[in-house]
Amino acid sequence: MDQVFSLKSLQSFAESLLLKIGCSREDASLAAEVLLSADLRGIDSHGIARLSGYLRLWEAKRINTAPNIKVVHETPSTAVVDGDGGLGLVVGPKAMEIAMEKARTAGTGWVAVKNSNHFGIAGYHAMKGLQYDMIGMAMTNASPLVAPTYSTERLLGTNPIAVAIHAGKQPPFVADFATTTAANGKLEILQRKELDAPLGWIQTKNGEPTTNAHALKEGGALVPLGSDAEHGSHKGYCLGAWVDIFSAVLSGANYGPWVPPFVSFLAPPADPVGSGIGHFFGAMRIDAFRPADEFKSHMDNWINRFRSAKPVAGQERVLIPGDPEREMSAERIKTGIPVNDKVVIDLRDLGARYGISL
Amino acid sequence: MDQVFSLKSLQSFAESLLLKIGCSREDASLAAEVLLSADLRGIDSHGIARLSGYLRLWEAKRINTAPNIKVVHETPSTAVVDGDGGLGLVVGPKAMEIAMEKARTAGTGWVAVKNSNHFGIAGYHAMKGLQYDMIGMAMTNASPLVAPTYSTERLLGTNPIAVAIHAGKQPPFVADFATTTAANGKLEILQRKELDAPLGWIQTKNGEPTTNAHALKEGGALVPLGSDAEHGSHKGYCLGAWVDIFSAVLSGANYGPWVPPFVSFLAPPADPVGSGIGHFFGAMRIDAFRPADEFKSHMDNWINRFRSAKPVAGQERVLIPGDPEREMSAERIKTGIPVNDKVVIDLRDLGARYGISL
Repeated sequence: MDQVFSLKSLQSFAESLLLKIGCSREDASLAAEVLLSADLRGIDSHGIARLSGYLRLWEAKRINTAPNIKVVHETPSTAVVDGDGGLGLVVGPKAMEIAMEKARTAGTGWVAVKNSNHFGIAGYHAMKGLQYDMIGMAMTNASPLVAPTYSTERLLGTNPIAVAIHAGKQPPFVADFATTTAANGKLEILQRKELDAPLGWIQTKNGEPTTNAHALKEGGALVPLGSDAEHGSHKGYCLGAWVDIFSAVLSGANYGPWVPPFVSFLAPPADPVGSGIGHFFGAMRIDAFRPADEFKSHMDNWINRFRSAKPVAGQERVLIPGDPEREMSAERIKTGIPVNDKVVIDLRDLGARYGISL
Repeated sequence: MDQVFSLKSLQSFAESLLLKIGCSREDASLAAEVLLSADLRGIDSHGIARLSGYLRLWEAKRINTAPNIKVVHETPSTAVVDGDGGLGLVVGPKAMEIAMEKARTAGTGWVAVKNSNHFGIAGYHAMKGLQYDMIGMAMTNASPLVAPTYSTERLLGTNPIAVAIHAGKQPPFVADFATTTAANGKLEILQRKELDAPLGWIQTKNGEPTTNAHALKEGGALVPLGSDAEHGSHKGYCLGAWVDIFSAVLSGANYGPWVPPFVSFLAPPADPVGSGIGHFFGAMRIDAFRPADEFKSHMDNWINRFRSAKPVAGQERVLIPGDPEREMSAERIKTGIPVNDKVVIDLRDLGARYGISL
């Protein structure tokens, strides 16, 4: 069962809690906005449901709520940012700002971030460019849950990629996806409902395909986009590896199996190869390539052509990346955000500890 | 059956032919090198087997062998290049040079190309950065053979992405993959052998899954990486769309279903939305992020850790992207390049027409 809350009530609950643990007013407001953007867009696994996880990390002294976020290396079009152990929800937007600032003068800006934490949904950060006629990109590495093709060991996170591109009259093209066949959030839904997973989403600890949605707890792993070698999982592995290297090897963060876990009850690896987790952001001014109006009118044409393609039987239409999330957003702004009962109990427990009611 | 040729004999055959159709000595040599790099790396569909295709396009007056390749727009870190209808095998390397030149001063360089043709394997171009301690990237759009998720219509090419990243003592990380479940070249092999395709590679003209390797001739389509919506084909669709937009909407080339076909017997669309096909190149100086030696030593660590992961039963090891192609290359330099009999006949016919023997 779900309970429905308004965006405002959840956002203000998150903000109040973040203030309590030492975030500045500005940071608490920003972090709550980033967090709730996931719930709005229907990516419930990355939103308010994760708030207690962030809090527990702070209680374990693994998050710095008053970070000194700074550029430690730069060129006209690049920068490396040290997040100083801050919330990814705060470090991410600041790093994206730097990427956009670089793009203003150099045409494009590319920022690798170390010493950060989970940054919410990649799409939030990529979409920041849209208001300035910039194409935005965002990637992050994450706790190792994914086995590369032919591996029994979990070496990569679900490592998402987001790309947001302006159109003119049409809404923007927003791709935001984990580089695995299924995101971990989808698996969690099956686990809660005691349902099997489709074959091709997960493998056992020996690397055999399984429908057991609980296989990760038994040493199994998520698999890269493509599911198996015959269906191109080596390509999903390439994508996840690319995200890991750009986010962490370029920045000086932890990579591969060294990425610290999001859950506070698991200790970070004792032999870190870098600082915190890593992100990578990109901003490209459209007019660094061609006049923005010209570009946007061709994007409208692109979108109209794809959206009007003849769909397969049983499907109403061909979707443009970003369509489902935008529609969900519009609906949830009107009707509120449904939150799973277990999450509500978790949030109220958390609120009680800090004297904040939901 | 295959016949085996030395790299040198095939390269010199290609070069001689390209000279005959008006390429400069420099361009002919470069184009032959790019073309043969595909055969060397085992991507036979994109190598010498395509030479007659390029020649037929030239005969149909759809390739300009004396192009005026020029930058038509630029910022410190970006450029748009007009390929003037030249061979992609020549336009591609010149555009990648411009991306690297931008990276020297701005830290990174990003070049979108219009008015080009097929550029061989994306990996060749991405790997060009390695000699200058730059991460290289290359993408291209291509003739529409792929149906987006839920579409019965073919709107995208196999739109590959390549990323080449330096290591220190280890060989480089080189990812180079079509954004479809299977590349068209793999399908052609099954067609020649009259074998079925695995389910999840292609769909019928109504969008149903099929094992018929000839389904494309009957109005069917390749499917995006992920195979079907349950296994994340919308993510493969996002990837292919991203490549299409960066390669063509940014540059002013044709996109989506308007991309002109590679085969000369199919006319280009009568209502083009841009010029030729499009590519997108990127070069990032490693030391625009952190000292190159530091980066390379962490890449060695990354590669060693992944390569030493415990493999699944029946597999010798976990591969690093680029391993199979590098090993194939080393072998073929020693033992020669096997060329399919039908391709040999095709090449000798071609040679006879232009007075060049193979």
